[in-house]
Amino acid sequence: MKDIVKAGLCQVPVTDNKEKNIEEAGKMIREAAANGAELIALPEIWNCPYSTDYFEEYSEPEGAGTYSFLSETAKELGVYIVGGSIPENEDGRVYNTSYSFDRAGKLIGKHRKAHLFDIDVEGGIRFMESDVFTAGDSTTVFDTDLGKIGVAICFDVRFPEPFRKMALEGAEMIILPAAFNMTTGPAHWEISMRTRAMDNQVFFAAVSPARDMEGPYQAWGHTCAVSPWGDVLTMADEKPQIVYAEFSAARLKEVREQFPLLKSRRPEIY
Amino acid sequence: MKDIVKAGLCQVPVTDNKEKNIEEAGKMIREAAANGAELIALPEIWNCPYSTDYFEEYSEPEGAGTYSFLSETAKELGVYIVGGSIPENEDGRVYNTSYSFDRAGKLIGKHRKAHLFDIDVEGGIRFMESDVFTAGDSTTVFDTDLGKIGVAICFDVRFPEPFRKMALEGAEMIILPAAFNMTTGPAHWEISMRTRAMDNQVFFAAVSPARDMEGPYQAWGHTCAVSPWGDVLTMADEKPQIVYAEFSAARLKEVREQFPLLKSRRPEIY
Repeated sequence: MKDIVKAGLCQVPVTDNKEKNIEEAGKMIREAAANGAELIALPEIWNCPYSTDYFEEYSEPEGAGTYSFLSETAKELGVYIVGGSIPENEDGRVYNTSYSFDRAGKLIGKHRKAHLFDIDVEGGIRFMESDVFTAGDSTTVFDTDLGKIGVAICFDVRFPEPFRKMALEGAEMIILPAAFNMTTGPAHWEISMRTRAMDNQVFFAAVSPARDMEGPYQAWGHTCAVSPWGDVLTMADEKPQIVYAEFSAARLKEVREQFPLLKSRRPEIY
Repeated sequence: MKDIVKAGLCQVPVTDNKEKNIEEAGKMIREAAANGAELIALPEIWNCPYSTDYFEEYSEPEGAGTYSFLSETAKELGVYIVGGSIPENEDGRVYNTSYSFDRAGKLIGKHRKAHLFDIDVEGGIRFMESDVFTAGDSTTVFDTDLGKIGVAICFDVRFPEPFRKMALEGAEMIILPAAFNMTTGPAHWEISMRTRAMDNQVFFAAVSPARDMEGPYQAWGHTCAVSPWGDVLTMADEKPQIVYAEFSAARLKEVREQFPLLKSRRPEIY
């Protein structure tokens, strides 16, 4: 990977006005680029409220308005954009999809959330993503001039397997657009991100929407970046903001050499 | 599993006097049983200092003195003992081995540490277990009248794969005799135990020796138990002590039903 990768993680405020959401995301991406970020990431479902009531209505086919906005902005600014996720519509099915673009605005990664969020905690939250979304069926790693990047979405993080797979495929940085809630956020947000980074010895960034107490879903926020040693490099609170992190190739190398976890696996016994 | 399993986790003080170590462990096991614990666990390498200089000298063949002590004590007290780990000698090879006994003193589980601890952190610790130990080549789960129990040892915890395998084989409780140090302890002890519990929705207990600032290795201590939701139920400091935890079958069921992680895996894409 590049010696230092400056990431700009945009904790976008999300409303039910798609145009306004795109405008807000655009402002943050421009500000992040102006501040030197070359790898800019958006949250899970940032052009639409996070609610099964909205996903189908807000969904777009690949290449449509939100996609074009991301591609054109990446090209204009000459940066990599991991475009969070948006509802994608294909052949009448709706997916929770993340598109990533290179400095030329070319699509270089597409990830459809592979683990849908179905939860029913007594006294806590009930949410059934599978009522509306179809699950993707792959993991996603792509090469860039910054290094190898893996992308997964929110509930995917609950499963160690896809992250291990991405690391073994060479991922050095993993970006997770995500929207934990007020039950799972305080319980599991930080530990989930730290663990996947630590176990797989990768830089890890999780990007949440800002919290909207008036909307249908209260996101935990706390957009963060974690080092390959598992320590938190930066963590937001719940308000709209950009957080920055520098991913150091030397630190990645150091952790992997001194503490060679990936080489110490015993796959023959698992 | 049984409705409530009371575990007694013995943070044994370890010296270079094997007889004294066995005597200390015996006192703690008796006290734990007297306090109602039915599942009693010891630390990693508790009859010998944790140092590659000692393992071979202190090692015993299966069935010898330390093994007999554990078996007889389990039988006498009518409890399950997960006997931490001790250096085992077989055909000139030395293993880091955990023996578990049922209420009748019968051996019901044997785990040889499968991932050896080789680490060289600049400005921190250097330790090469593979200089002396041979690695085991299996994971370990066994059935009891308390429920299904998995056992792994210390550095094994660094790898998500064996714990996932144990959970898929039905483990409801996992016991990890372990001896993190003053580098990895503060960095990764708590998160490692919480993560394996949370990801696999099991009760998880990690049992360390007490810290001995005069000995060749300073263990982190902090013997702990974690719930299937990933919250810490109890955690010791570094001094000799027994910590107790109650593992509730109802809580295990509740977490697995409300938040069905194990059923939501997508093994076809990993």
